[in-house]
Amino acid sequence: MSIDYQSLAVKGVQALSPYQPGKPIDELARELGLNPDSIIKLASNENPLGPSSKALSAVRDALDELCRYPDGNGYTLKQALSSRFNVKPAQITLGNGSNDVLEVITRCFADPASEVVFSQYAFAVYPLVTQAIGATGVSVPARDYGHDLNAMAEAVTDRARLVFVANPNNPTGTVHGAEAIEAFLARIPERVIVVLDEAYCEYLQGEGYADGLSLLERYPNLIVTRTFSKAWGLASLRVGYSISSPEIANVLNRVRQPFNVDTLALAAATAVLDDEDYLQRSRDVNAEGMKQLETAFDEMGLDYIPSAGNFIAVDVGEKAHDINQSLLEQGVIVRPIAGYGMPRHLRVSIGLPGENDRFIESLSRALDSLSLAESGRGA
Amino acid sequence: MSIDYQSLAVKGVQALSPYQPGKPIDELARELGLNPDSIIKLASNENPLGPSSKALSAVRDALDELCRYPDGNGYTLKQALSSRFNVKPAQITLGNGSNDVLEVITRCFADPASEVVFSQYAFAVYPLVTQAIGATGVSVPARDYGHDLNAMAEAVTDRARLVFVANPNNPTGTVHGAEAIEAFLARIPERVIVVLDEAYCEYLQGEGYADGLSLLERYPNLIVTRTFSKAWGLASLRVGYSISSPEIANVLNRVRQPFNVDTLALAAATAVLDDEDYLQRSRDVNAEGMKQLETAFDEMGLDYIPSAGNFIAVDVGEKAHDINQSLLEQGVIVRPIAGYGMPRHLRVSIGLPGENDRFIESLSRALDSLSLAESGRGA
Repeated sequence: MSIDYQSLAVKGVQALSPYQPGKPIDELARELGLNPDSIIKLASNENPLGPSSKALSAVRDALDELCRYPDGNGYTLKQALSSRFNVKPAQITLGNGSNDVLEVITRCFADPASEVVFSQYAFAVYPLVTQAIGATGVSVPARDYGHDLNAMAEAVTDRARLVFVANPNNPTGTVHGAEAIEAFLARIPERVIVVLDEAYCEYLQGEGYADGLSLLERYPNLIVTRTFSKAWGLASLRVGYSISSPEIANVLNRVRQPFNVDTLALAAATAVLDDEDYLQRSRDVNAEGMKQLETAFDEMGLDYIPSAGNFIAVDVGEKAHDINQSLLEQGVIVRPIAGYGMPRHLRVSIGLPGENDRFIESLSRALDSLSLAESGRGA
Repeated sequence: MSIDYQSLAVKGVQALSPYQPGKPIDELARELGLNPDSIIKLASNENPLGPSSKALSAVRDALDELCRYPDGNGYTLKQALSSRFNVKPAQITLGNGSNDVLEVITRCFADPASEVVFSQYAFAVYPLVTQAIGATGVSVPARDYGHDLNAMAEAVTDRARLVFVANPNNPTGTVHGAEAIEAFLARIPERVIVVLDEAYCEYLQGEGYADGLSLLERYPNLIVTRTFSKAWGLASLRVGYSISSPEIANVLNRVRQPFNVDTLALAAATAVLDDEDYLQRSRDVNAEGMKQLETAFDEMGLDYIPSAGNFIAVDVGEKAHDINQSLLEQGVIVRPIAGYGMPRHLRVSIGLPGENDRFIESLSRALDSLSLAESGRGA
C-alpha cells in the first residue's frame, strides 16, 4: 500500500487510543482455556442481580418487531421518563448508552478551537470524545481522588465550551453533595455547557445528595446524563439519556443518529422504569456488598477510596499488575485502572455475596503468593 | 433564558435539519385515531417476512446476559462475517446500523476544510453527516436518477477526502454494474476514501453486478458498507458493518463507540448469517412483489424508476403530497421523497403480496378521488 491511511485521518483521530473495556468472560475463557461458567466478572460495574423480569417480558413481547426500524423518537420511553421525573419529553435526548449522549454533546458544542474541562481520574470517555474532535482537554488535578470543583471552576477560560462533572465519579466513586454542586454551577458562565454525569445516581440514598434534575430550571446551561446500564441492569442493551432545556435537547437531537436506540432496548427500558422493586434490590445488594468488601479490605490492611457507586477502587500496592494477572488466572476479572493514572488500584464492581467472597479469597491468595515470592527472593 | 443555545452549537450543527424517518405505525395510529393492526407500513425498506427464526432463537438465548456489557470487539459476529466473506476480522468495523459506520468514516477522514462528494438523490445520511462536521458537501447532478460516475470522478478536487457511492442507490433503486464501478475506482486518487454503500446488495441476483469486496485488494482506499437491516431482516436491532483494509478499520475502530452494537444485536446477526433459506425467501418475496407493483404501475399508466433494491420510486404526479395524505388516511404508510428533491415520487417498499395489493388499491382510490375532485373543480 503506497499510502498510510492513518496519516489521512483527521488530527484528533490520529492521536486517539481507543477505550479499553473490561475483559469479557468469553475472551478470558479463550485466552486462558478456562470454563466460562467458572469465571466471575466484577470489571464493568454491571448489575449482579441479572435482568428485571419486567424488562425480560417487554423484550420478549417486542420480538415480532425485529424487522421494523425502531421508533426514532422513542415516544413511549420518553413518556415514561417524562412522568417519572416530571420533565417534558422535549427535554430528553436518548442515546445508545450514555456514552453516545456524551459524544453527541461534545460534537454539538465543541470544536478544535475549544477547551473541554474535566477532572483527573474522571470517566475515560470525556478525554476520548474531546480528543476525537480535536478539541483541547483540560484535566484538572483531583483532590483526594475526587473532583476539585473550585479548581475546575477556575480552569474555565474564555475558550472553554464544556465541563464534565461525574457525580458519583467513575472509577473513584467519589461524590459531591447538593450544596457543592450548586455552588459550582453558580460559578460557571452561562455560555459554558455543564454536563453532570449521573450514571451512578440511583445508588445514592439518604439526604444531601445532589439531584441534577432539580437544578435544571435555575441553570439553563446544565445537561444531566443518566443510564440504564447500572442500577437498572440493562448494560447489554445500550440506553442512556440526557435531560436538559428543550433548546439544548433540540440541538442534540439533530446530531443524534435517527435510530440510535433499538426497539428491544426501548421496550426494556420503558418496562424496567416501572420495576421499583428491582431498583430497590439493586441498591440493597450493592450496599451489602460494599460493606462486605470494605470489611475485607480493612482486615487485609488495604486502603480503598470510599465509594458512592456500585464499585470500589482498592489500593493493592505497586504490584497491582501482577495481582490482576493472578486474579485472571483464578477466573476473576476486575478492572486495572493504570490507564486512569492509578497504577496501584484495582476497581472492583460489587457482586453478589458469593462473588464478593470469591474475589476476596482470590485477592488474598494473590497477595500471599506475591509476598511469598518476594520473601523468597529476599532470602 | 438569556442565551440562545442553538447559537452556541458548532457551525455545521446550527444549520442541520435532522433525518426524517418513515412514520412509525404507532405514530400514525395516534395521529389519525386508527387501529395500529389495520395499518401497513411500506415506508422504510424493511423486510416484510418478519424475523428469521434463527435470529429469534439467538436473541432468546442471549436474554440472560441483559445486565452485561456487550463484547465491544464483536468477536463472534466478526468471526462469522470473516468466514462468510473470506476477509480477516481485522478488516471489519461494526456499527449501530450502517448509519453509524457512515458517520464514523466521515468523522475520521473529513473535517471542515474537506469536500465530501455524493450524488444528487443519494441516501440522505451522506449530506447529513457531512454537514454535522462542517465539511462541504458536493452534490453531483444525477443522470436518469442514478449516480453519474463520470461526473462524480470529475468532481473530486484536491480538497475532496471522501466519496460516497450507493449501489444500489436509495431512494431511486438505480445500480451500476461491476465494470462501471471498477472504472470509477480507477479514476479516484488513492488519497481519497471511496465508500461503496451496499446496503441493498443482497437483492442483486444474476451476473454482472458489482461486489465491492472483490475490489478491496486492488483499491486500498475502498470501504464497503453493508447492513443487517434489509435482506437480513434485523432493522430493529441496528447492525451494520464496513469491510476495508485493516489499516482503515484500525482508524475507524478508534472512533467507534466501544459498545456501539448491543448483545442481542450481535447474537441475532451472527445467527441470521447462517440462515440461507431466510435470505433466499427475502429475495424471492422481493422479486415477486417488485413485479406485482411494476405491473400495477404499468396498468395505471404511472412512470417508475426500475429498482434493484427492495423498494420502488413511482411518479404519482404533482399532487404527490395529497396522494400520500390519502394513503395515510387509508392506513397505508409509504415514503414521500420531496426532501430528496423528488416531489412527484413516492418511494414504496416491497411488501408481502397482500400488502402490495392493499397499497395498489389505496393508491388507485387516491388517484381516482383526486381526479374526480379536479374534474369537479373544472366543471
